[in-house]
Amino acid sequence: MGIIVQKFGGTSVGSVERIQNVANRVIQEVSRGNQVVVVVSAMGKTTDELVSLATQLSKNPSKREMDMLLTTGEQISISLLAMALQAQGQQAVSLTGWQAGIKTEAIHGNARIVDIDNTRMLELLNAGNVVIVAGFQGIASEAEITTLGRGGSDTTAVAIAAALQADKCDIYTDVTGVFTTDPRYVKSARKLHSVSYDEMLELANLGAGVLHPRAVEFAKNYAIPLEVRSSMEIENGTRVEEEVSMENNLVVRGIAFDKEITRVTVIGVTNGLHSLSTIFTTLAKNGINVDIIIQSMTSANTTNISFSIQTVDLDETLAVLAANKENLGFESIEHESGLAKVSIVGSGMISNPGVAAEMFEVLAANEIQVKMVSTSEIKVSTVVEDVYMLKAVEALHAAFKLEANVEQTV
Amino acid sequence: MGIIVQKFGGTSVGSVERIQNVANRVIQEVSRGNQVVVVVSAMGKTTDELVSLATQLSKNPSKREMDMLLTTGEQISISLLAMALQAQGQQAVSLTGWQAGIKTEAIHGNARIVDIDNTRMLELLNAGNVVIVAGFQGIASEAEITTLGRGGSDTTAVAIAAALQADKCDIYTDVTGVFTTDPRYVKSARKLHSVSYDEMLELANLGAGVLHPRAVEFAKNYAIPLEVRSSMEIENGTRVEEEVSMENNLVVRGIAFDKEITRVTVIGVTNGLHSLSTIFTTLAKNGINVDIIIQSMTSANTTNISFSIQTVDLDETLAVLAANKENLGFESIEHESGLAKVSIVGSGMISNPGVAAEMFEVLAANEIQVKMVSTSEIKVSTVVEDVYMLKAVEALHAAFKLEANVEQTV
Repeated sequence: MGIIVQKFGGTSVGSVERIQNVANRVIQEVSRGNQVVVVVSAMGKTTDELVSLATQLSKNPSKREMDMLLTTGEQISISLLAMALQAQGQQAVSLTGWQAGIKTEAIHGNARIVDIDNTRMLELLNAGNVVIVAGFQGIASEAEITTLGRGGSDTTAVAIAAALQADKCDIYTDVTGVFTTDPRYVKSARKLHSVSYDEMLELANLGAGVLHPRAVEFAKNYAIPLEVRSSMEIENGTRVEEEVSMENNLVVRGIAFDKEITRVTVIGVTNGLHSLSTIFTTLAKNGINVDIIIQSMTSANTTNISFSIQTVDLDETLAVLAANKENLGFESIEHESGLAKVSIVGSGMISNPGVAAEMFEVLAANEIQVKMVSTSEIKVSTVVEDVYMLKAVEALHAAFKLEANVEQTV
Repeated sequence: MGIIVQKFGGTSVGSVERIQNVANRVIQEVSRGNQVVVVVSAMGKTTDELVSLATQLSKNPSKREMDMLLTTGEQISISLLAMALQAQGQQAVSLTGWQAGIKTEAIHGNARIVDIDNTRMLELLNAGNVVIVAGFQGIASEAEITTLGRGGSDTTAVAIAAALQADKCDIYTDVTGVFTTDPRYVKSARKLHSVSYDEMLELANLGAGVLHPRAVEFAKNYAIPLEVRSSMEIENGTRVEEEVSMENNLVVRGIAFDKEITRVTVIGVTNGLHSLSTIFTTLAKNGINVDIIIQSMTSANTTNISFSIQTVDLDETLAVLAANKENLGFESIEHESGLAKVSIVGSGMISNPGVAAEMFEVLAANEIQVKMVSTSEIKVSTVVEDVYMLKAVEALHAAFKLEANVEQTV
């Protein structure tokens, strides 16, 4: 017997039938003798509908009022789930973010949780209730309603698990777990039994929305074991935890990929101490997300700086750079679109220095040219032409033995 | 310059266009140099939609969770109105019931306001904001979200007006004011310039939903001048206040009527001290609303008791009485449906003892038989066959000189 936190996303509570399905899942967990806290998101399309109303009234609605508006979505979900549980005879109490004691920074739209007062949740649990908490929201000083930004409900669940010293946090979603690569594109993709927190962070862009990086970081910091699993199907999902025992003989655990990448090269940057920071501070101020950055010295006095961006940001990037040409001090700009990023992830890489070389070899054997490279301790990212992206993923998936049939022999 | 509280009902904020219309009304009031607090209800059909979701999940959803669910409706309205005002350059801040300091009893579904902490509203007003408060909701001790029951937003508005010592409380609705009788049925019905609180209480069932009796009582107790007016049309409405100066030469101010009335007669009740209270306590416990009650002695030992109910409650009333026959001690039950109630209302009656007699005379002259009578200090109610209801209303409307053309000569 312990405390289990379950998180259900918007799709999982998208209709009356699905809410009843969630109630069944919760009752199963209670029947195993556990105390259960359930964190839910807003029902399916609710958030989109509310955003649409807001944008009809204001081109640039205030973040404070957006928080006021959007937090109603989760409040609807929690009360409906409480009713569904009560209808089945299960004691349940719903709590908004502020009622659950979730205190955040005084920032609207993207606040971080600073503290959770667990008193009320514990009282309710100990009185035999399932406690249902609105995800994505909290309260700042001055009794202001705040939201946590993208992936907020995942973060709520993990933070509550930490505050209650829960035994486990189950993230129920519309996929059955974390895969070696995206199963929609690669048939031999295989569900992982477990991944480490760091691997999960690097794989976070695999199957968008499976688990938000912020939540993973939080779980890592507090050592909360997570499990990503399906709300529709009864099967084990993927455990995210520090110790990965089952598959630690595999150096590479997953392959992530991403299209619509553009490489921008700033040529002839005046060689000053601050050239790098000036360029990327300027881009960041304009909300442009830069991924891979490569600096290469060309002569004693100038430098070329290449970086990758989402292609959708290209026009704005060029405009920002042009507007700051004098200030930044460069000669010209080149750019190449139609690129993709392919990354291999695995914490085993730390002790296997040859992994990057093996990756380049596989790509070369398949005649795929590498345009950019970036490495971290547990990841190697390459930028290639997007027409070769899936070919690269499949070749790497096979070379690093991630196929479904390999698992059966482990 | 003073503080004005404006209340807009669900129809008035039922769409993006209507919310913009409300924003215009608010800005007009601000441009007159007033500080404005706006109380809004949930948008149009929102509440019905939420109730429908709840009943799909539970036959008897808990009142606490219903409060949690339904209060999202007003929270959506307040944030959208704030955005609409901000889009027009008007500083505005929305507040939920708990943020606005509206403290209620710890009862779900039908709580009464016990106190309002006006600190935050005053701070925001003094900082130049329009303050937008969610109607119908408050907070009980233990940080529980509560609702005020039917007509709750009217009550919120009046209570806030009292707490802020506002100069006036304007109730914007979908009619242009309070009429001498229902203008949908009686062509000569005329809008009243003003009525007293007590008259408004008696007339509350004229044009259902114009103004909730609880709000009128609250306004009377704190001497808050109200005005009932249209949110769509620019014209003066009806003032509700203690001093009625304009039309005080009229003894009867309005005529209320109501169909679907049934008279029930309990025959041969054993003549005990407690027979009356026992019968009506039993009915009240079963949620049956009894209106007029008449007791007539028939012999030394038994009594006949007649009362009127809504026809929709007849079957349950008969079942409750039958089930308690022994306990209540009566011989038999008679009942007559197809009746209607017609009432004349006016505080001038207090000093005019002949008004009831005049009413009976008018009805008799029109060959309308009176089945039951009930009088208060400012009202005389009669029960008649429903086929004669409108005939009675029109005859009384003319006899007491309430027609539109009479007003012009006053």
